[in-house]
Amino acid sequence: MAAEAAPKLGIIAGGGELPGLVIAACRAEGRPFHVLALTGHADPEIVGDAPADWIRLGETGTGFKRLHDQGVAEVVMIGPVRRPTIRELAPDFRTARFFAKVGLKALGDDGLLRSVVRELEEEGFAVVGVDAVLADCLAPAGTIGGPAPDAEAEADIARGIAVALGLGALDIGQAAVVQQGIVLGVEAAEGTDRLIRRCAELRREGPGGVLVKLKKPGQDRRIDLPTIGLTTLLEAAATGLRGIAVEAGGTLVLGRQAVAAEADRLGLFVVGITIPAQG
Amino acid sequence: MAAEAAPKLGIIAGGGELPGLVIAACRAEGRPFHVLALTGHADPEIVGDAPADWIRLGETGTGFKRLHDQGVAEVVMIGPVRRPTIRELAPDFRTARFFAKVGLKALGDDGLLRSVVRELEEEGFAVVGVDAVLADCLAPAGTIGGPAPDAEAEADIARGIAVALGLGALDIGQAAVVQQGIVLGVEAAEGTDRLIRRCAELRREGPGGVLVKLKKPGQDRRIDLPTIGLTTLLEAAATGLRGIAVEAGGTLVLGRQAVAAEADRLGLFVVGITIPAQG
Repeated sequence: MAAEAAPKLGIIAGGGELPGLVIAACRAEGRPFHVLALTGHADPEIVGDAPADWIRLGETGTGFKRLHDQGVAEVVMIGPVRRPTIRELAPDFRTARFFAKVGLKALGDDGLLRSVVRELEEEGFAVVGVDAVLADCLAPAGTIGGPAPDAEAEADIARGIAVALGLGALDIGQAAVVQQGIVLGVEAAEGTDRLIRRCAELRREGPGGVLVKLKKPGQDRRIDLPTIGLTTLLEAAATGLRGIAVEAGGTLVLGRQAVAAEADRLGLFVVGITIPAQG
Repeated sequence: MAAEAAPKLGIIAGGGELPGLVIAACRAEGRPFHVLALTGHADPEIVGDAPADWIRLGETGTGFKRLHDQGVAEVVMIGPVRRPTIRELAPDFRTARFFAKVGLKALGDDGLLRSVVRELEEEGFAVVGVDAVLADCLAPAGTIGGPAPDAEAEADIARGIAVALGLGALDIGQAAVVQQGIVLGVEAAEGTDRLIRRCAELRREGPGGVLVKLKKPGQDRRIDLPTIGLTTLLEAAATGLRGIAVEAGGTLVLGRQAVAAEADRLGLFVVGITIPAQG
């Protein structure tokens, strides 16, 4: 039976609660794992007593060695990492070599994360997406919770898709809020919760807006998959939005059952939408 | 000499201080004018004692008649108009006919303003851009105030141009803030001052970011020309930005001499950049 056991999983942990979910999934499956927690990004309470090394973002060399030492074969990168400046990195020799190769321009867009995936692969690790580990959290197509969107909401969703894909193509952000055809706000570095919150001041009378959140066109599914959860839903309700549309198969819905129940209670829709192939 | 006199100018006044500048320019030139002030958008103190009719956005029929009655031949639309919802419009017969023609989808993007320009032209008015009335306020190419941008700032400006043109092509907004290659924020309905302000929380250590503000690609120069002024500069300074780049010949710099002097004092750059033809 040993041949069937999943290989030891290296969990490169950024912020938020997602690393905790991956750790819990490994434990539930009895799968061996080792956490590489990023200092200043990962939450010590979320990592808890899981086997872990803490490294700075600039300590790639140390990190790769730790994963090899632990016998890790597969790696997942999980949880947002605030995009660093070169000054924050204080790179070690291995990291400096990495930047000499990919160029500093990689900082500030997904180019950096794509390059990290390539580096991990060159080091002999298989890099998998979080959806391979947390399949239950992937948004399905169709209604996830709440009522079905009406025609006006559908029109706002369509405009939101066009805007979010455009933003994604420019590597700016993943989310937009649209109300009655008007783009109230778009996401850049501030994150989705803050985006929703500031739209409260900008909203018009009449039917509320919608939040649309999508994977960037061509985004590697192994990095930075868009995520919503109960907090997103509650922010949306507080801002008077009528619902949330996420990419089916391309967005994580954390605590999906709780989200669905709360959406029903609040009367907000949460839907998974299918986006045509993005290359 | 009567043949040389500029025709009577109709000033359709939205919010902010720009309508006041146009009124002052007409008075200085001795040019006859009449203001059509938009209730809920134009500022009564800015319009002051200028000859004016106040109309709601939905009273297009009344407005056109007033302009004809006043013998107006040329019209300028000036000052931001918060994009209305159909419920706010409460359209009169003339306006309802207009929407029956252009479709409600025009609400929420520049399509509405472009359609208004066409309607004015069909009514026999010549529509001119504010730059024809306030040529002194148009941003020139090159340094307007403060030091020259260094290489890192130039790189942020270049990224900001790409982002702002992309946003503009999607008809979302006109401005972006970029720091060290990272897009801190992009503008939608909130306006430039709020965009700058929220970037204060998002800024990284090290060299500050830049604000880039451009006309949308293909934007009719007669509507909604991007504008900066002393407030923009002070918000930028408070957020730790290093400078502002605007489109030469496509942006209004209100109080240009005061802006230049304050930029020198603060050590922030204000530059006019030339954007390749946008069609």
